[in-house]
Amino acid sequence: MTIKIGIVGYGNLGRGVELALNKCEDMELKAVFTRRDPQSLKIASDKAQVVGIDEAAAWQDKIDVMILCGGSYSDLPQQTPQFAEMFNVVDSFDTHAKVPEHFAAVDKAAKNSAHVGIISVGWDPGLFSLARAYANAVLPDGQDYTFWGRGISQGHSDAIRRVPGVKDAKQYTVPVEDALQAVRSGQNPNLTTRQKHTRECFVVLEDGANAAEVERAIKTMPNYFADYDTTVNFISEEELKEKHGKMPHGGMVIRSGKTDGENNHVVEFNLKLDSNPQFTGSVLCAYARAAYRLQKEGATGARTVFDVAPSYLSPKSGDELRRTLL
Amino acid sequence: MTIKIGIVGYGNLGRGVELALNKCEDMELKAVFTRRDPQSLKIASDKAQVVGIDEAAAWQDKIDVMILCGGSYSDLPQQTPQFAEMFNVVDSFDTHAKVPEHFAAVDKAAKNSAHVGIISVGWDPGLFSLARAYANAVLPDGQDYTFWGRGISQGHSDAIRRVPGVKDAKQYTVPVEDALQAVRSGQNPNLTTRQKHTRECFVVLEDGANAAEVERAIKTMPNYFADYDTTVNFISEEELKEKHGKMPHGGMVIRSGKTDGENNHVVEFNLKLDSNPQFTGSVLCAYARAAYRLQKEGATGARTVFDVAPSYLSPKSGDELRRTLL
Repeated sequence: MTIKIGIVGYGNLGRGVELALNKCEDMELKAVFTRRDPQSLKIASDKAQVVGIDEAAAWQDKIDVMILCGGSYSDLPQQTPQFAEMFNVVDSFDTHAKVPEHFAAVDKAAKNSAHVGIISVGWDPGLFSLARAYANAVLPDGQDYTFWGRGISQGHSDAIRRVPGVKDAKQYTVPVEDALQAVRSGQNPNLTTRQKHTRECFVVLEDGANAAEVERAIKTMPNYFADYDTTVNFISEEELKEKHGKMPHGGMVIRSGKTDGENNHVVEFNLKLDSNPQFTGSVLCAYARAAYRLQKEGATGARTVFDVAPSYLSPKSGDELRRTLL
Repeated sequence: MTIKIGIVGYGNLGRGVELALNKCEDMELKAVFTRRDPQSLKIASDKAQVVGIDEAAAWQDKIDVMILCGGSYSDLPQQTPQFAEMFNVVDSFDTHAKVPEHFAAVDKAAKNSAHVGIISVGWDPGLFSLARAYANAVLPDGQDYTFWGRGISQGHSDAIRRVPGVKDAKQYTVPVEDALQAVRSGQNPNLTTRQKHTRECFVVLEDGANAAEVERAIKTMPNYFADYDTTVNFISEEELKEKHGKMPHGGMVIRSGKTDGENNHVVEFNLKLDSNPQFTGSVLCAYARAAYRLQKEGATGARTVFDVAPSYLSPKSGDELRRTLL
């Protein structure tokens, strides 16, 4: 018996989840739910259906876990609680400041319907949060560092695209090697925003746009670029497509801490991802497995990665895990 | 109300646990249990007692969790089940092949007495096992690599000390940089034992010993050195004490795997530890907290790190964890 999965939203992340499910022998994609006209949407899987999002209620007996692949800004705050009234759900909600309120809304809905909802799943929040939690529990006297990159930031790329004269753009967040080495060596430095990351921009100009003007507008943009050392490279549309068409990302969570006056310990969790949405989709699938199992055991309500024992993520039995991975 | 801790066995690991408890405000060391004459044993903590191991039964109302710091070869197979009949227990059992049998024995005893026993806690097994489990769940189609070092292997140092003509010795296990880089770059290489680690030996000779003879005996020793590129350095007793008196260790667990034909992802967990026993002691303390809480909730029986949700390790509440570490 396989775990029957539904995907809500078929953007980059939805397609990443669909792909990840191919590697999970105990799970099966049953349907993709979309706000678009279902007739107009072609999906990769030939065994799954495309269904209008408003018809989801009719699928309650046919789907074990819904994986919500919408955006954190406007989709998930509505969709996750709404779907948790009908299904076990997993989402990748990443607006840190609004997590308490989102957790409460999902918890209420999921308890009400006796389902499980796991929120904020992915790599940050997600696996990075786990790395922070384990390292903090083990080294109470220490300092946390998170570096992102080298990878494409969708938000920063979008911000550049809004600059007049810009036709298209990609932005890479890049950790500063010296800062990283200082942290890894156990020096526990205090680092400013500028000391931790640089920003590399690849920009295609509109015909007739003023390059110097565009560069100035990008580099002085508050919040996004003003506090960083930013490089702007103007390239052709072809080069952007050819060399910057993928969605790599990654980063490191490092905790450095002491057990006594002389002994320091450095714990690092490091990700190098060729495709951010495909990897995030893979994490969502593992937690969908956990949501299914937790509910089978009688659990209800909201969870985060902190509340789920690792064994729930694996298709292996406890005995098998102990024999092969301990 | 603090969690009341007992330590069984006061070697390097026992002292590491004692030190780690100083950093845990919610925990308190009540007593160290020893096979030695309690009068003869001086411990660092001035508020805890030293007690003969045979008197442990009288401490059942005074101790919430016993942290067992004996060896995996002869101490823990006996002690952990025996203490689990009276207390919640945590141990660092690391004989991989005997885990199923040890788990079963602890499970039986702990269920019988309505306690929780968490076995094989530390960094390998322990945090490295967690890294393998999470990465395997998230990237089902991939390959695992574990590198150890640069760090002192107690077992290999002991093996050198048994060679005739050797007065004292320390052995460092060192990961091979080229192999590590190949793995990190996502090449998924197949590596032999020799390609993954080298062994560096620092040896103090007995007066009149034959250096060439000793070197040959070390380098050809089956299991320990014959399959590795081994370097033997002869140094003075003073130099050994001065430069090789600490117990650093660490290593990396890396999983490299694909989500489709073109996209590879590399997940790495990396430890650099100035003191192996102090860090292992810190991990044991975090899991002692978990054992206490699990039993409070009504759980009984044996667990490994796979079965414990990360939130149980932290003194922070679920709400605080979500606000600060997610």
